[in-house]
Amino acid sequence: MTQHHTDPHERYERGLRALAAIDGDAGHKVVEALAEIAPDFARYLIEFPFGDIYSRPGLDLRAREIATIAALTAMGNATPQLKVHIEAGLNVGLSRDEITEIIMQMAVYAGFPAALNGLFAAKEVFTSRAAADREPVA
Amino acid sequence: MTQHHTDPHERYERGLRALAAIDGDAGHKVVEALAEIAPDFARYLIEFPFGDIYSRPGLDLRAREIATIAALTAMGNATPQLKVHIEAGLNVGLSRDEITEIIMQMAVYAGFPAALNGLFAAKEVFTSRAAADREPVA
Amino acid sequence: MTQHHTDPHERYERGLRALAAIDGDAGHKVVEALAEIAPDFARYLIEFPFGDIYSRPGLDLRAREIATIAALTAMGNATPQLKVHIEAGLNVGLSRDEITEIIMQMAVYAGFPAALNGLFAAKEVFTSRAAADREPVA
Amino acid sequence: MTQHHTDPHERYERGLRALAAIDGDAGHKVVEALAEIAPDFARYLIEFPFGDIYSRPGLDLRAREIATIAALTAMGNATPQLKVHIEAGLNVGLSRDEITEIIMQMAVYAGFPAALNGLFAAKEVFTSRAAADREPVA
Amino acid sequence: MTQHHTDPHERYERGLRALAAIDGDAGHKVVEALAEIAPDFARYLIEFPFGDIYSRPGLDLRAREIATIAALTAMGNATPQLKVHIEAGLNVGLSRDEITEIIMQMAVYAGFPAALNGLFAAKEVFTSRAAADREPVA
Amino acid sequence: MTQHHTDPHERYERGLRALAAIDGDAGHKVVEALAEIAPDFARYLIEFPFGDIYSRPGLDLRAREIATIAALTAMGNATPQLKVHIEAGLNVGLSRDEITEIIMQMAVYAGFPAALNGLFAAKEVFTSRAAADREPVA
Repeated sequence: MTQHHTDPHERYERGLRALAAIDGDAGHKVVEALAEIAPDFARYLIEFPFGDIYSRPGLDLRAREIATIAALTAMGNATPQLKVHIEAGLNVGLSRDEITEIIMQMAVYAGFPAALNGLFAAKEVFTSRAAADREPVA
Repeated sequence: MTQHHTDPHERYERGLRALAAIDGDAGHKVVEALAEIAPDFARYLIEFPFGDIYSRPGLDLRAREIATIAALTAMGNATPQLKVHIEAGLNVGLSRDEITEIIMQMAVYAGFPAALNGLFAAKEVFTSRAAADREPVA
Repeated sequence: MTQHHTDPHERYERGLRALAAIDGDAGHKVVEALAEIAPDFARYLIEFPFGDIYSRPGLDLRAREIATIAALTAMGNATPQLKVHIEAGLNVGLSRDEITEIIMQMAVYAGFPAALNGLFAAKEVFTSRAAADREPVA
Repeated sequence: MTQHHTDPHERYERGLRALAAIDGDAGHKVVEALAEIAPDFARYLIEFPFGDIYSRPGLDLRAREIATIAALTAMGNATPQLKVHIEAGLNVGLSRDEITEIIMQMAVYAGFPAALNGLFAAKEVFTSRAAADREPVA
Repeated sequence: MTQHHTDPHERYERGLRALAAIDGDAGHKVVEALAEIAPDFARYLIEFPFGDIYSRPGLDLRAREIATIAALTAMGNATPQLKVHIEAGLNVGLSRDEITEIIMQMAVYAGFPAALNGLFAAKEVFTSRAAADREPVA
Repeated sequence: MTQHHTDPHERYERGLRALAAIDGDAGHKVVEALAEIAPDFARYLIEFPFGDIYSRPGLDLRAREIATIAALTAMGNATPQLKVHIEAGLNVGLSRDEITEIIMQMAVYAGFPAALNGLFAAKEVFTSRAAADREPVA
């Protein structure tokens, strides 16, 4: 399952596609926010996490988002990124109940405060998504 | 999907069954190691993580082990428990390649050292399991 | 000092009493905030931390709150819970000066930023409690 | 309860006395181990944690060791220092059961692996101390 | 390179000078904010980090701020202090590009979220400093 | 100072050269240790941290190793990698005293245990390097 060296433009394009599929608009906004201060870092973010890791065939995106939501909840010091990946979890097919289960389980490994703060982050994402869904688009 | 209050013996028994299914012998050894210093803690370990959380119907054990392996790799300060859950991941149907993918992905969220140390823990588990598999049983 | 299996309703009720004695209103608010997203987690929070751990006879609540304030200050990634437990410390008989001492001591184990952020959290709790105390009740 | 500037020799001597009272031999060994690589750091260790913090009158040593054992268990990345402070807790009057209670409680705030690893550290300290107690002194 | 015991007033004064040189106004504000809740802690902050550590001759302030910005970015749980030290880095001669490089590098050791949050903190500091620079002083 | 897309072989080769310059043999050993379990991860390690980050022109290797030693000391959960980078610091021109200063400073930001464990790691590296230097080569 070894990836071979690929054309760098291909890697960047593959990363952009993965980023859009996973994070939707949120990924685009992070890249924009970086443009002024560290444009190369935006490129690395597209290339390594998305072009290399999330594009690997050995694990589907659903499983990858379970891993990421769990890790960010447990670490407890990256709430903005946790919210982006709760949203990403929904984008790749996890249900709200499944995301809630993953976060609750983190009480066992990182304590109740980490799980509580993860649940409140999920509540915010679920609520703002529900609000967006109710908005008429045209 | 709300669990109702259950008979406490039922909860303990359910936890014991989940512990055996997930951790195999390793769970039993931890409980024994606790007997001398904190027997109540062994009971809590069976009741809350296994009797309550892992027994919940909303997420299968495969997904739960993805979450746990990711979190313990990312936190990086609980190697013995990470090894137990890499073994547990194999027990509930994750392949070695899938476990390797989960740990590699943690480089993105917790840095390369956390992922490297997770990969070396996995290598140890895979090697000792391979050795055990080669041993004649009778 | 081993607890025996107790009736689950008893455990839940014991947890509710401990939660009220320790966290006062704050505990109630957390449980309410969870109702919409993860009602089972509110129950676990009452049962395990409060019904099991804080209800154990081997350590008084004053000592337990010293431990919790110290740990949450040192971890530095759960400010809302730290504030709840600074308030809880006052509820179970710690003085403001004692709480300040505990937090200052964390500079030794988790660094000056963790202690500083803990002291600023304490300042907020002390100030808002002083304001509440000044308010006429009727 | 403000400390005033004190003579620096006084501060160092006060720190040495506090270190001996709290850590016994273990403190001395750390200072010796530092002599070759960072002798000034040994002095800072005596002066700030012990000469300044542990010598403050606002909290007794028993309470201070509860705080330290809790924090080091929760952080989970400083096992040698946790063992020194479990020993220190015994030195200043905490019982083995009380220390076990503090560590168990950390499961709530830092997860079960942190508490388990803390309990196993305590078990080692208790066992080696029991062995030392059985040794004839003369 | 061993420091000798120095007169405590000298140590405090040396700390105040280092604090002013490194943190400028921000240091003064922290000391003021502590005055009400923990005035001794303000003194310790001046004496140990600034009077002892930052005043040591073995490493220049530029190198010391590289170390501090890196550590606070990697730890990810002390944003206010990270901002103070990004400002401090500029005060002691690091360029915006150098600070950005240090923070980007932390993606390797602490993950992309830690680096992203560090970059956004830097962007805030750079922006507010640029705004202050444009303001007419008289 | 934006890097442009480069030929992937060039990026890998650039990473290999940086890895050799910084980590010497240690880097080679890590890559070998990964070969069996996760060969792609060895490639990522060469490409992203070394081919991308350490090869950037905006900060010299001396400054980059100050940042890495500081961060790994402060995080406290990656001792093998900390040792590799203490060695790397020596390779790129930091003196033993400078490395000791960086690690001591981390007491301020991550607490005394993190600094102590960092100093003991440095002592091991310095000692084994001194031993290697004394060995006759031919």
